[in-house]
Amino acid sequence: MTRPIVEEAISSLYCTALPTTFTIADLGCSSGPNTLMAVSQLIKTVENIRRNLCKNTIEYQVFLNDLPGNDFNAIFKALPNFHGSFKREMGDDLGPCFFTGVPGSFYGRLFPSRSVHFIHSSYGLHWLSKVPEGLEENKRNIYMAETSPASVLKAYYDQFQRDFSLFLRCRAEELVDGGCMVLTLLGRRSEDPTSKECCYIWELLAMALNDMVSQGIIEEEKLESFNLPKYMPSPTEMSIEIGKEGSFVINRIQVSKVDWNVYNNNDESNELRAGGYNVAKYMRAVAEPILVSHFGEAIMDELFIRYGEIIVDRMAKEKLEFVNITISLTKMK
Amino acid sequence: MTRPIVEEAISSLYCTALPTTFTIADLGCSSGPNTLMAVSQLIKTVENIRRNLCKNTIEYQVFLNDLPGNDFNAIFKALPNFHGSFKREMGDDLGPCFFTGVPGSFYGRLFPSRSVHFIHSSYGLHWLSKVPEGLEENKRNIYMAETSPASVLKAYYDQFQRDFSLFLRCRAEELVDGGCMVLTLLGRRSEDPTSKECCYIWELLAMALNDMVSQGIIEEEKLESFNLPKYMPSPTEMSIEIGKEGSFVINRIQVSKVDWNVYNNNDESNELRAGGYNVAKYMRAVAEPILVSHFGEAIMDELFIRYGEIIVDRMAKEKLEFVNITISLTKMK
Repeated sequence: MTRPIVEEAISSLYCTALPTTFTIADLGCSSGPNTLMAVSQLIKTVENIRRNLCKNTIEYQVFLNDLPGNDFNAIFKALPNFHGSFKREMGDDLGPCFFTGVPGSFYGRLFPSRSVHFIHSSYGLHWLSKVPEGLEENKRNIYMAETSPASVLKAYYDQFQRDFSLFLRCRAEELVDGGCMVLTLLGRRSEDPTSKECCYIWELLAMALNDMVSQGIIEEEKLESFNLPKYMPSPTEMSIEIGKEGSFVINRIQVSKVDWNVYNNNDESNELRAGGYNVAKYMRAVAEPILVSHFGEAIMDELFIRYGEIIVDRMAKEKLEFVNITISLTKMK
Repeated sequence: MTRPIVEEAISSLYCTALPTTFTIADLGCSSGPNTLMAVSQLIKTVENIRRNLCKNTIEYQVFLNDLPGNDFNAIFKALPNFHGSFKREMGDDLGPCFFTGVPGSFYGRLFPSRSVHFIHSSYGLHWLSKVPEGLEENKRNIYMAETSPASVLKAYYDQFQRDFSLFLRCRAEELVDGGCMVLTLLGRRSEDPTSKECCYIWELLAMALNDMVSQGIIEEEKLESFNLPKYMPSPTEMSIEIGKEGSFVINRIQVSKVDWNVYNNNDESNELRAGGYNVAKYMRAVAEPILVSHFGEAIMDELFIRYGEIIVDRMAKEKLEFVNITISLTKMK
């Protein structure tokens, strides 16, 4: 769903700027098989246009960014093989591609002023820079929930505003005039920040944690002092910050739904179970590091078994969806 | 010894170019406490001049390069602390410094065309891109030695010429016009490639290996198929390649001697022993990875004990020195 928007943005940028060195940054690149795939897809898109227009080869400077704790060694060790197969696939007409690792938080400057043409970020921006302050009254919730008091909702929203506006200011300095940015994140359509479409998946995790508190496996204070550093905004909330920052025009905002049961193509009950456990597995990959650092390694297996069962149960009863927001921006000259 | 040359080069480059973003590359940065120290020293030098000239703050883009197997994770994890203490040391008047990791061999392109102002490389360039072909007749030597046939000397020199000229061609494309490069490596003063000043330290290692062959600890064929991918050139040999490539003017070549006994300030015999073992320890850090990949881990402790004893014995009998070459180049406009 995101791909056409990314392709449209990077193609039109290439045609307008016609750079001899095209600088691309991937923010929150992570380290896995998809890391280099995502960027190579961007390069392929530009190469298609360039070849159609019969322009000379260009150089690509690729900045792969993530936090300093990311496994950059794994990415770098995969590079020689990737380079080889990418060159074979693209043929002799491909200019040199330079890959570099940039450790640091994207809630801060990462690149020199006016040095980047295209910034891409996929599923990183719904993470806040830190857990908001003032969540003491969130008790046995771990994120915003229907039972969260107004002070908690405000603390989360304030942190989102501070983080996202800082993100925009930094990128506005780093992008060349006319440079583009495509951001994809989990969000919501509703203006209610406790809306089921963004919070329910975390409420179910809180449910599993609360069960373990009831059974004495987790201490109550341990759960009450835990909250997620996340915010899943609405398109309006994003647009407000973009407007306030003032450097960007919004080319496109796309809101799309992804069924939790994305792995399942029929409604047989064993398939549904598999789908539910796949959701739990995916959520484990996403949330485990932050859960381990608070609750410790030991309870993780049990927690995710319980979480999986709760998810399967709910998916049998109702249709559940994530909401993806993709936003395409151009830095004004 | 190298520092005044580096400082002269980078200062004069800053004053001539007055860039708003100063791009610095360290080739063969390794990963240890010195990695970030080396680059911060370069930034400090530029900052001193900039502040004396009352110029506006500038941004620094730092490219840290080494092979993809280098431990970049360790460098990146050290960055947040380094950033903090560097900022405290330099005060508020320091512009942003962006550190990035660039995995790849410097015997190939690493950076976009005309994108780097200053290139620094310390003790990396005496390594060749690979073991030269055609060393079958080098038998029980592991590097060029007095007993090496002419074909072996030629194979090593040819590989040096290919590698160093490729290095120069790549850097000439990457540096901006007027950009500078300071290279420090182990070399020799003599035009004889088997000269003691560059080869003796390796002949002593070969001696330890040969002893272990005699005692049946290492197989003869194993030793005969091992050669080091190194070349320690003379200033003349370097100048010839620089002249042939044609993009650079040589500002300065400095040749200096470093006593093997650099750790030892008096001549008491136990101090001498310590000095000898320190040389062996240093050589182990340098050569162990390549020795392990050929001979295996198991014999390393014994090999370096024997090597240490041989070094101590020789150092008691004669004054032994390494030769450092530092060369400062400017890319012509």
